[in-house]
Amino acid sequence: MNGAESLLRTLVDAGVEVCFSNPGTSEMHFVSAIDRVEGMRPILGLFEGAVTGMADGYGRMAERPAATLLHLGPGLANGLANLHNARRAATPIVNIVGDHATYHAQYDAPLASDIIGFARPVSAWVHESTSASSVASDGARSVQAARTAPGQIATLIVPADVAWLEAGPPADPLPVAAPSPVSSAAVGAAVEALRNGKRTAVLLRGASLRGDGLVAAGRVAATSGARLFCDTFAPRVERGAGRVVVERLPYFAEQLVETLAPFEQLILVGSTPPVAFFAYPGKASWCSPEGAEILHLAHPHEDGVAALVEVADALGAGGSGTVAPLQLPDHPSGRFDQFTIGQVIARLLPEDAIVSDEAATSGLGPAIALATAAPHDVLSLTGGAIGQGLPLAAGAAVACPDRKVVCLHGDGGAMYTLQALWTMAREKLDVTTIIFANRSYGILNIELQRVGADSGPQALSMLDIGHPDLDWVSLATGLGVDAVRVDAVDAFRDAFASAMSQTGPRLIEAVL
Amino acid sequence: MNGAESLLRTLVDAGVEVCFSNPGTSEMHFVSAIDRVEGMRPILGLFEGAVTGMADGYGRMAERPAATLLHLGPGLANGLANLHNARRAATPIVNIVGDHATYHAQYDAPLASDIIGFARPVSAWVHESTSASSVASDGARSVQAARTAPGQIATLIVPADVAWLEAGPPADPLPVAAPSPVSSAAVGAAVEALRNGKRTAVLLRGASLRGDGLVAAGRVAATSGARLFCDTFAPRVERGAGRVVVERLPYFAEQLVETLAPFEQLILVGSTPPVAFFAYPGKASWCSPEGAEILHLAHPHEDGVAALVEVADALGAGGSGTVAPLQLPDHPSGRFDQFTIGQVIARLLPEDAIVSDEAATSGLGPAIALATAAPHDVLSLTGGAIGQGLPLAAGAAVACPDRKVVCLHGDGGAMYTLQALWTMAREKLDVTTIIFANRSYGILNIELQRVGADSGPQALSMLDIGHPDLDWVSLATGLGVDAVRVDAVDAFRDAFASAMSQTGPRLIEAVL
Repeated sequence: MNGAESLLRTLVDAGVEVCFSNPGTSEMHFVSAIDRVEGMRPILGLFEGAVTGMADGYGRMAERPAATLLHLGPGLANGLANLHNARRAATPIVNIVGDHATYHAQYDAPLASDIIGFARPVSAWVHESTSASSVASDGARSVQAARTAPGQIATLIVPADVAWLEAGPPADPLPVAAPSPVSSAAVGAAVEALRNGKRTAVLLRGASLRGDGLVAAGRVAATSGARLFCDTFAPRVERGAGRVVVERLPYFAEQLVETLAPFEQLILVGSTPPVAFFAYPGKASWCSPEGAEILHLAHPHEDGVAALVEVADALGAGGSGTVAPLQLPDHPSGRFDQFTIGQVIARLLPEDAIVSDEAATSGLGPAIALATAAPHDVLSLTGGAIGQGLPLAAGAAVACPDRKVVCLHGDGGAMYTLQALWTMAREKLDVTTIIFANRSYGILNIELQRVGADSGPQALSMLDIGHPDLDWVSLATGLGVDAVRVDAVDAFRDAFASAMSQTGPRLIEAVL
Repeated sequence: MNGAESLLRTLVDAGVEVCFSNPGTSEMHFVSAIDRVEGMRPILGLFEGAVTGMADGYGRMAERPAATLLHLGPGLANGLANLHNARRAATPIVNIVGDHATYHAQYDAPLASDIIGFARPVSAWVHESTSASSVASDGARSVQAARTAPGQIATLIVPADVAWLEAGPPADPLPVAAPSPVSSAAVGAAVEALRNGKRTAVLLRGASLRGDGLVAAGRVAATSGARLFCDTFAPRVERGAGRVVVERLPYFAEQLVETLAPFEQLILVGSTPPVAFFAYPGKASWCSPEGAEILHLAHPHEDGVAALVEVADALGAGGSGTVAPLQLPDHPSGRFDQFTIGQVIARLLPEDAIVSDEAATSGLGPAIALATAAPHDVLSLTGGAIGQGLPLAAGAAVACPDRKVVCLHGDGGAMYTLQALWTMAREKLDVTTIIFANRSYGILNIELQRVGADSGPQALSMLDIGHPDLDWVSLATGLGVDAVRVDAVDAFRDAFASAMSQTGPRLIEAVL
């Protein structure tokens, strides 16, 4: 077998089952090998930002890496923004990036570029294979790197001749270290802090925001009186009825400071001390309360779930904390806005749905209403690189084919990777996308004032994405996804109810 | 004035008149300053790949840099693929990339990333401003770097506080060195070679493919019998009736070898020895004929135009070389394909049009027919990173508002940066786009065989961009551009004639 097949078999043997792809000439042998190897599902994206975003969504839900297949430096470059988001989410991903044949590199052909240079800022692990005989072991190493806790981006560069030359057999999977156990000293310190009577906030991130971690956090909070928080943009949170309630920290620096001000102690579980998303003149960057004690119960690479269970047990906490009730809003009437939209969604959301949230300035309404909706997962924009929501939804749908995915997206951000809609259509993914069409980079109209800048007509034209208005029904139709435009609550309810009653991709443009 | 205004005034004073923008919070002060400063036109793109591609198209036609305005590392990352193309085209561009405030960097907020790392592979010059008092001189330096022959990418990173703090006055423009003069020894060697009776190919690139350079090259060829060639993907070529005929080197390695095989000497003018675009098993990478003498009359940073004039004069060459006749095809009939499409375009193309060519496997027909059409400029995909054609056309239209721009684009590549259509609509740019809709990554179906890879059904599904078919009329309409779908010669002729008779953006989906 050639290097490509040897690598592919290695990836499959290591548990990589999906390859989100946008290949070119230098990746043809890898593409070709897919037909000879059982167990790898190739999924085409028509732009690499969609490809890497799908891998992120898949990884967050499947809790194991997908591969991406990207075409040299520029192909990787097009996927970097969503790899930045994935890096912030600690999502495991294995990027396979083709390159010119090793002997061809010296000629500086037009597509030659510094691939390692492009890869480095987003990758915990980067390696260029140098021969067909080592590409299998390189591949095994890339999966090991990606699966290293809490999850990492591994980028393996595969020159074309490494793919096409005769190679050895696939490599066995390498051991993947479990998350590091938390020391008993750290557990003890947290237990002591939770007993000392001080006002305490527990900041959760990663695995502690779902399943056993969340239950344990709930027990800790119920017993100790500590309050539970997560970052504004947590990679994945289990929310809704029956789930332990975790408050989401606010986005703006001054609200963040105000929210945390009452606390004398912060206990971090897989999280870091909260900081402002942006700097603003005269506002805080470091948002933890002055003088507060900061304890790391678990760093991101450590086993925060087990640590929370230990702490809960040590505190003698009971079997469960406070969970959200199931409390569905009535069908709303009146003004068509993010709040009534949120109420419709919350009322109709099926159990175990996945919500990909890049609604930006339209996100508050849905977040409020969904707090007591049927249990669901929420995936957020972790790195601030807009254009993540659509591919994230697609990738989540690939990982969880039996769960409904709802994508909430601002119109500005959705324009960056709208190509993901086509993959939803091709793969018949069960994703309902709601575009909040305010025809504006809404957040920038707020930020313009917050940074203290004037707003003349030319400045405002840079924040306005109308003139001409985007027509999302046409865009979705052009990409093979059924779509409808609504501008009233009843029409939205009908469209959303219809989408929930069927499977497959849909798009609803909600004109605000 | 603050740092942003000081920088902006510096750019304007240095001759930068257009800023292709996709700003965010950290760039708000720069955006705001645009309303206080005369002479800078901001143009919004809804994705950074469109922004940088427009700057490339502008720079190729205006022969001076536009600025881009990009939002931190991920914003730059989204623009890297087209910056790679621009780097290969030696287009002058000044990237202004916002960053977190200097004092905020330490907090590793979600959008923080290694911006310099992202910038380095595509930039000849990278610098991060560290204070409002130096940002003006940094800006002057960035323009100087961009204008350094033959044209370079300069990336200036501007932290938010550098933009908002009180700054000094704008900086004066720095001197821009003219292209280096070619030594008399190099001129002498070329003259001697052209007189020695050996079969000679002259390979032109850069400024020698237009204006005085092209005329001089024609004189040289007419007198010496040398043949004139340009790269498959030259950044900009003047072609058509009345222009000196320059043969385009073929794309595939074996054809390249065959074309050059007869020559005993290659004289390079702003070009490099031809190499294969990709490596293929058993095929040449280095495509210059074995044993041929290679002379550099002018390196890319040198004044190849003046050198050609000197050589022509020394050879005693007459006033003009062989130029293409005006020879318009009849209106074609019969099969609807790239050849009949090319004939329609050639017949109807107005004088001084600009052709942005990313037609890929559909490009041969138009190229043949346009050889004797009205004089025009052709802009090619210089770096192989597909998704350049639409923004390149938009940027060229901004640079040359009185010239018709025709964009020839494969459907696969056009999906990468279709957002450029919206900017065409907003700015009412006079661009007619033809989408060659073969519903396939056509080139990959060829390359799959050429690299010797098998093609099973899964492999073929990765090259097929139908299922579902893209609907370019819907996509264009969704982005505010009038569009029509045609699948027959007469209908295409009517649509193209209509587009040529009006101004403003149009799209014609040619279903092949």
